[in-house]
Amino acid sequence: MSEADSSAGSRPAPHISRYRVTYRMTDQMGVVYYGHYLELFEIGRTEMLRDAGFEYRLLERDGYYLPVVHVSADYLSPARYDDLLLIHTWLEHLGKVRFDFRYELCREGDDRALCRGRTRHVLVGADGRPRRLEGTWLERLKPFAAQSEDSGDSSPA
Amino acid sequence: MSEADSSAGSRPAPHISRYRVTYRMTDQMGVVYYGHYLELFEIGRTEMLRDAGFEYRLLERDGYYLPVVHVSADYLSPARYDDLLLIHTWLEHLGKVRFDFRYELCREGDDRALCRGRTRHVLVGADGRPRRLEGTWLERLKPFAAQSEDSGDSSPA
Amino acid sequence: MSEADSSAGSRPAPHISRYRVTYRMTDQMGVVYYGHYLELFEIGRTEMLRDAGFEYRLLERDGYYLPVVHVSADYLSPARYDDLLLIHTWLEHLGKVRFDFRYELCREGDDRALCRGRTRHVLVGADGRPRRLEGTWLERLKPFAAQSEDSGDSSPA
Amino acid sequence: MSEADSSAGSRPAPHISRYRVTYRMTDQMGVVYYGHYLELFEIGRTEMLRDAGFEYRLLERDGYYLPVVHVSADYLSPARYDDLLLIHTWLEHLGKVRFDFRYELCREGDDRALCRGRTRHVLVGADGRPRRLEGTWLERLKPFAAQSEDSGDSSPA
Repeated sequence: MSEADSSAGSRPAPHISRYRVTYRMTDQMGVVYYGHYLELFEIGRTEMLRDAGFEYRLLERDGYYLPVVHVSADYLSPARYDDLLLIHTWLEHLGKVRFDFRYELCREGDDRALCRGRTRHVLVGADGRPRRLEGTWLERLKPFAAQSEDSGDSSPA
Repeated sequence: MSEADSSAGSRPAPHISRYRVTYRMTDQMGVVYYGHYLELFEIGRTEMLRDAGFEYRLLERDGYYLPVVHVSADYLSPARYDDLLLIHTWLEHLGKVRFDFRYELCREGDDRALCRGRTRHVLVGADGRPRRLEGTWLERLKPFAAQSEDSGDSSPA
Repeated sequence: MSEADSSAGSRPAPHISRYRVTYRMTDQMGVVYYGHYLELFEIGRTEMLRDAGFEYRLLERDGYYLPVVHVSADYLSPARYDDLLLIHTWLEHLGKVRFDFRYELCREGDDRALCRGRTRHVLVGADGRPRRLEGTWLERLKPFAAQSEDSGDSSPA
Repeated sequence: MSEADSSAGSRPAPHISRYRVTYRMTDQMGVVYYGHYLELFEIGRTEMLRDAGFEYRLLERDGYYLPVVHVSADYLSPARYDDLLLIHTWLEHLGKVRFDFRYELCREGDDRALCRGRTRHVLVGADGRPRRLEGTWLERLKPFAAQSEDSGDSSPA
């Protein structure tokens, strides 16, 4: 769960999406309910993929699905109603059947992280079984990935 | 939209479901967010149908869908965190292609209505076009309906 | 519930917000779940008020709340995953303690309405009792309202 | 993140809550959306606390709040519409200011885990600062905890 990224160097910059917190997302503690951050992670990765010419809608039309198999989140400071959030998204690992994303949320104009998260996804076909991503899709995403499979994937499962 | 039910007489009794309000459902006003009442209406009608031997899951397996075409709700008094709600549901109209439900929510042990609502549904097939309900399904539901089509349906649209 | 607006004439133009449908909002019918449209109505009216220099967040800071007392929606055609929706919002009635909004949703580049709705709100204080809007707030909103109270309010309840 | 529990021995039995999956919780993949599992975790821990004579509502009335600071979840097999889920909840750590819960979800009548998760909570006061739990609350919860602070807390942070 550690966020130590001493490696880095030439890491791709994060993708950034903006999102305005609605009343629906708050709870009676006056802050965003913890489950709703996972919707924000969804927006982060979807918009990143879109900007990479990789519309998830089209991927599904091709018979691919990208279900989440793992999520984690650290809540550092609460987001509140009407906050304009920046969702920073990194594609940490781009494999032929596995994608790892990392997220960091902050308020616009304030670098302090409110929430950090990770999701892991597995690419499956309509039958629910792992399916390898075809070449053109893979090539399109590589510039966004910190690590991709045929460039020497040594990440632990 | 008037709730005047001076008619009645031998109306079927409402179906009653219980639901405990979760933290997720509250907003920063300290009450249940207005959109979440529609989830409670869903629970009310689904559980009523189940008790009528009419599992919505099985209906879908038979190629029927029951999308909502209209909803209305009046919010009379707020439901709050941890309230144990009673969802009263009536099947107001049972047609061959149209179903009307009515709902009333209150706290257990308190008759005062917190919210009253209505939904209208149309029965469609997988192609999205209206599809008439077959006889066995229809017969099962009749005892729950205040009004059903072949018993002289004169309800206004 | 009729949407006949033959009156009009010099009605203010609607406010328009954009919203991208997320995966969260879909259900297994492959369309947006009916309850989630109420979140879109919230976004429509909040962004309209913001553009009128009327931030709801600041209103709450002044001790005003604007709970919903009534909602209705007609679902005409389903919105789907990844649709870019336009939320048209009209402030139909601006009273000293009552606000009525009307909404119409369509896809960008397609005039066909997917959903039409209305909400009615009552302005209350922290004690939950009706509270009249002060002059400066009221003046700011008038240009956006089809009808406002001291210009001859004759709307039916 | 490993769930190896070879230790065990005299671990308290899990608390079990039942929950019927609603249509709202599904997405267009035909399964429960990943974010909604966090609502089920909420239900699991709230009902466990209630059965321990520890109503969260009353805790808030005493000026305590229990925000989530960390969550993780592993999605093993999808839950589907109308599934009757069993939410198994364990209080893994009961500290004076920190609570750790663990969850496992399965279908009634089927032992296979669909989802496993963990949450970590910190007890704070109305000012948002850590606040130690008073003695009576603490005593009530001890029988439910696998580990509690004054019984030799050696859990890693």
